[in-house]
Amino acid sequence: MLAGLAVAATPKKNRRIVLAKRPEGEPTPTDFRLEEAPIPALKDGEMLMQTVFLSLDPYMRARMSEGPSYAAATEIGEVMVGGTVSRVVASKNPKFKEGDLVSSYSGWQEYQVSNGMGIFKLDPRMPRPSYALGVLGMPGLTAYVGTLDIGEPKPGETLVVAAATGAVGSVVGQIAKIKGLRAVGVAGGKEKCDYVIGELGFDACVDYKAAAGPEAFFAMLRGATPSGIDCYFENVGGMILDAVMLQMNAFGRIAMCGMIAGYDGQPLPMQRPALILLSRLRIQGFIVSEHPQHWPKALAELGAGVAMGKLKYRETIASGLDSAPGAFLGLLQGKNFGKQLVKLI
Amino acid sequence: MLAGLAVAATPKKNRRIVLAKRPEGEPTPTDFRLEEAPIPALKDGEMLMQTVFLSLDPYMRARMSEGPSYAAATEIGEVMVGGTVSRVVASKNPKFKEGDLVSSYSGWQEYQVSNGMGIFKLDPRMPRPSYALGVLGMPGLTAYVGTLDIGEPKPGETLVVAAATGAVGSVVGQIAKIKGLRAVGVAGGKEKCDYVIGELGFDACVDYKAAAGPEAFFAMLRGATPSGIDCYFENVGGMILDAVMLQMNAFGRIAMCGMIAGYDGQPLPMQRPALILLSRLRIQGFIVSEHPQHWPKALAELGAGVAMGKLKYRETIASGLDSAPGAFLGLLQGKNFGKQLVKLI
Repeated sequence: MLAGLAVAATPKKNRRIVLAKRPEGEPTPTDFRLEEAPIPALKDGEMLMQTVFLSLDPYMRARMSEGPSYAAATEIGEVMVGGTVSRVVASKNPKFKEGDLVSSYSGWQEYQVSNGMGIFKLDPRMPRPSYALGVLGMPGLTAYVGTLDIGEPKPGETLVVAAATGAVGSVVGQIAKIKGLRAVGVAGGKEKCDYVIGELGFDACVDYKAAAGPEAFFAMLRGATPSGIDCYFENVGGMILDAVMLQMNAFGRIAMCGMIAGYDGQPLPMQRPALILLSRLRIQGFIVSEHPQHWPKALAELGAGVAMGKLKYRETIASGLDSAPGAFLGLLQGKNFGKQLVKLI
Repeated sequence: MLAGLAVAATPKKNRRIVLAKRPEGEPTPTDFRLEEAPIPALKDGEMLMQTVFLSLDPYMRARMSEGPSYAAATEIGEVMVGGTVSRVVASKNPKFKEGDLVSSYSGWQEYQVSNGMGIFKLDPRMPRPSYALGVLGMPGLTAYVGTLDIGEPKPGETLVVAAATGAVGSVVGQIAKIKGLRAVGVAGGKEKCDYVIGELGFDACVDYKAAAGPEAFFAMLRGATPSGIDCYFENVGGMILDAVMLQMNAFGRIAMCGMIAGYDGQPLPMQRPALILLSRLRIQGFIVSEHPQHWPKALAELGAGVAMGKLKYRETIASGLDSAPGAFLGLLQGKNFGKQLVKLI
């Protein structure tokens, strides 16, 4: 490769979406702003990456607000954060060369300059690179670690997961089935529930949108879990958590990886924490990046599951950077079906 | 011993306190009723025990009400449950003989007939048999298992325990100190806090009665835990739990053995369960009777600690069966100082 060629091909302008203001309650399109910025010249050791796929995930909602979190809030005017699959378009870093496909954390923008820290090359033979943002990336690892390492499930037990068609929930329930558990999903609407049972192979699915209120939801959940609940993978909170806790068996485990129901306003209380004692529950919050020791085994098993067709996986792909805010708001409202991505090129 | 003598000494009448009705909110003396009942003649294999000490414990409040629990509620008209130290006064059971001192579960009554199941002989040389109901019994084991096996403390960390002068809390903090932690108690009133620091050797104590409200309490707690909180031994719930959770460090552990604050009425919510995720906490409910594998080691260590004077332990002893309801209501209001007992003979 001629260095002069790479320089000639290097674009000069980046388009990016920044946080325009902090949401008051549910986010709206005006909380985001699309802007252009020059791309700085590469210094020695740096490379320029062009975003191919941007991952949209519920945790991004938390970063838009201030308040206690395991990660700092995105500042006003800063680029929205996000995992990406990118292609190296110019490199002065000896470890990466033009054309490399990489897993990066470039956020909501078309280009990023990086010194290579935290960037991992993807296998160029990978049939679907976008999977590195889903079942073979952070969401898949989250499902694996939470279900198996935090949840410690035993064959014959019952597992419940909310957002069951999502990038994480769909994998959680399928892992549970592979391990010999009864898997019960919670999802919004008949179409999603049909998919959870018919395609993903869960044993049952509770359509929370069909419940008139918390009591009706609890009755439906109880009907779907006749032997009680042993493992709960928590990514929603609120009414669903409260109902699940009432139905948990003694020594049940709750792996908590998200509480999206409480992101938009006042913190959502847990109504009956005394159930933790009464049912001798173990509740554990976790972030998958803090459990790297489990990744190699998890990626090997998830990869084998996908390759053998045992692990079904679905994506919803929006087109172009401009579509990111709308796709993200849809994700928060449960409009996506499977992993939500934006394809930029 | 002449069998005839034992028969002659056998009393005919038992006095006992039964649950008269279920409390509405805070229990009152009229929820209990003292009654007399005949003592049945012993069948082969049975023995008659006379209660020496009755243990009063917060969990008894839960048994007075219906609702989800790990144990069945006491029925109306049934004898109130409770751990006891008793003396065998007549025996047709070959394993026990008149004069034996035993650990039993006779409840709030002067006599009980038993076939010996679940009854354990105490060492007759034991200097203070009442300790079998406290530091060397269920409360001590609860403190040990919760602090060490559930809490997994590390030297240099900070542990907080509420009801810090109680039978459990006082042992929790002292174990924490022995293991090299900073121990911080929560107690009601200056006299108790002085005892927690001056006698029990905790590093600090927060007087919750001196706090005007939840925010003031949180400020006091924060002042007493400048490096945050790593371990919390939960036996109260409500305002104290909410404040502690805000102050927990990442990867903190909460051992939950009681939630006395919620016993009297509506369930007390946990205000910010999202903190479990944000701080990656682990919360585990436990009942010491389900962890018998830890008892031998625990009793050996606790016994050594008491014998060497390293483990301070205080009792409040009411006199006579009739005093039990009043002493129990005082316990629920925090009037006791150390382990609450009733001495019957």
